[in-house]
Amino acid sequence: MKIDVLTLFPEMFSGVFGSSILKKAVEKEAASYNVVNFREFSNDKHKTVDDYPYGGGAGMVLKPQPIFDAVDHLKKDSKANPRIILLCPQGETYTQKKAEELAKEDHLIFICGHYEGYDERIRENLVSDEISIGDYVLTGGELGAMVVIDSVVRLLPGVLGNEDSPIYDSFSSGLLEHPHYTRPADFRGMKVPEVLLSGNHQKINEWRENESLKRTKSRRPDLLEEYLREKNKKVDHLD
Amino acid sequence: MKIDVLTLFPEMFSGVFGSSILKKAVEKEAASYNVVNFREFSNDKHKTVDDYPYGGGAGMVLKPQPIFDAVDHLKKDSKANPRIILLCPQGETYTQKKAEELAKEDHLIFICGHYEGYDERIRENLVSDEISIGDYVLTGGELGAMVVIDSVVRLLPGVLGNEDSPIYDSFSSGLLEHPHYTRPADFRGMKVPEVLLSGNHQKINEWRENESLKRTKSRRPDLLEEYLREKNKKVDHLD
Repeated sequence: MKIDVLTLFPEMFSGVFGSSILKKAVEKEAASYNVVNFREFSNDKHKTVDDYPYGGGAGMVLKPQPIFDAVDHLKKDSKANPRIILLCPQGETYTQKKAEELAKEDHLIFICGHYEGYDERIRENLVSDEISIGDYVLTGGELGAMVVIDSVVRLLPGVLGNEDSPIYDSFSSGLLEHPHYTRPADFRGMKVPEVLLSGNHQKINEWRENESLKRTKSRRPDLLEEYLREKNKKVDHLD
Repeated sequence: MKIDVLTLFPEMFSGVFGSSILKKAVEKEAASYNVVNFREFSNDKHKTVDDYPYGGGAGMVLKPQPIFDAVDHLKKDSKANPRIILLCPQGETYTQKKAEELAKEDHLIFICGHYEGYDERIRENLVSDEISIGDYVLTGGELGAMVVIDSVVRLLPGVLGNEDSPIYDSFSSGLLEHPHYTRPADFRGMKVPEVLLSGNHQKINEWRENESLKRTKSRRPDLLEEYLREKNKKVDHLD
């Protein structure tokens, strides 16, 4: 998968792209990253990328020209028809389902604004997806792009070895994970539940299922509701 | 605000902590960051931080000892009573309201797992908050910690200058932002709406309010519902 990122802060990405799974994905030739400062594409002599908003108001707005031209340049080199993703608070709320959808693509281009608004024509005529990673205010789209890239790249074939197998399949199974314990059995007086030391695997599995349901019910009733709905659907389908 | 991060991948943070608002916050002495590899606190000779799960199963579990000892060490130096925040899929879903709450604290300690589960005793007996930044699977807690830190630090007094004033107050006002446009009025045949060029500020404000409501209704009916509920509550209160 080819991943391009348009940003005014390219230096933000080096630590994240150079570590852990994102680094491994490059070594395994499953992904490549290209971080581009779209200021380089500005065609005015001061290399400005923003301007005052029409109609007045606080803040600045990112101009269409540098971003359109940067995307045109990146698309020219692409055999695939890239998904062009804008990180913004107005976007659809990101989920694991969307990560699975994006993981099927060959080429993703991310556009990260910073402080500022995007000219609406970027939104309407250039991008294919608008994504928000959650209902909170961030300084720019960069952290959102890193989050989406991490969640997508780890799904690419061959990227996660067995040694990295995710113990948290919370959002894949539909329920939150049961508790985990490791040695020592007594740490500062805090003890591991007896059942996990019993060696009785049927009982252990029952305990885990029960804890997973209990935790989901108390912390995320919305997930439990959806889980039960999906389960009933499958049962209906088998009838 | 003092911010400590416990992680096995400290190098992931340099680019993000060294750029933009998070960098400015240090220069303005509003925040300081300290990234600690909790492997250094492991008291076995191989410096291991994980072990097999009691009761069997795939994956490894982070041991309590290195993380408890690292937090003890960080708390010893603290005058404040720090909030100890675990990034994990089972945590409460992060929102702007939580960011505003955390921004009132003097000291935050973030614990980032990577691939693995946490021993439940960390969750039950050490941390004050469990946070999930969204319903998707990430490789570790590092990106979650960066997201929370960015959203909190930008709220600290004196960090955002006027020049950085956020044009996106989407989640603060309760509605999504209206569209923005800047020059040129015609870009590749795509035109700015007439009303924004009219100079009639009353009409411009009406258009913006209307667009903001329309966009919220079509993209995030959940936010619109909450917005209207809050508004009615205020009206009731005035009666």
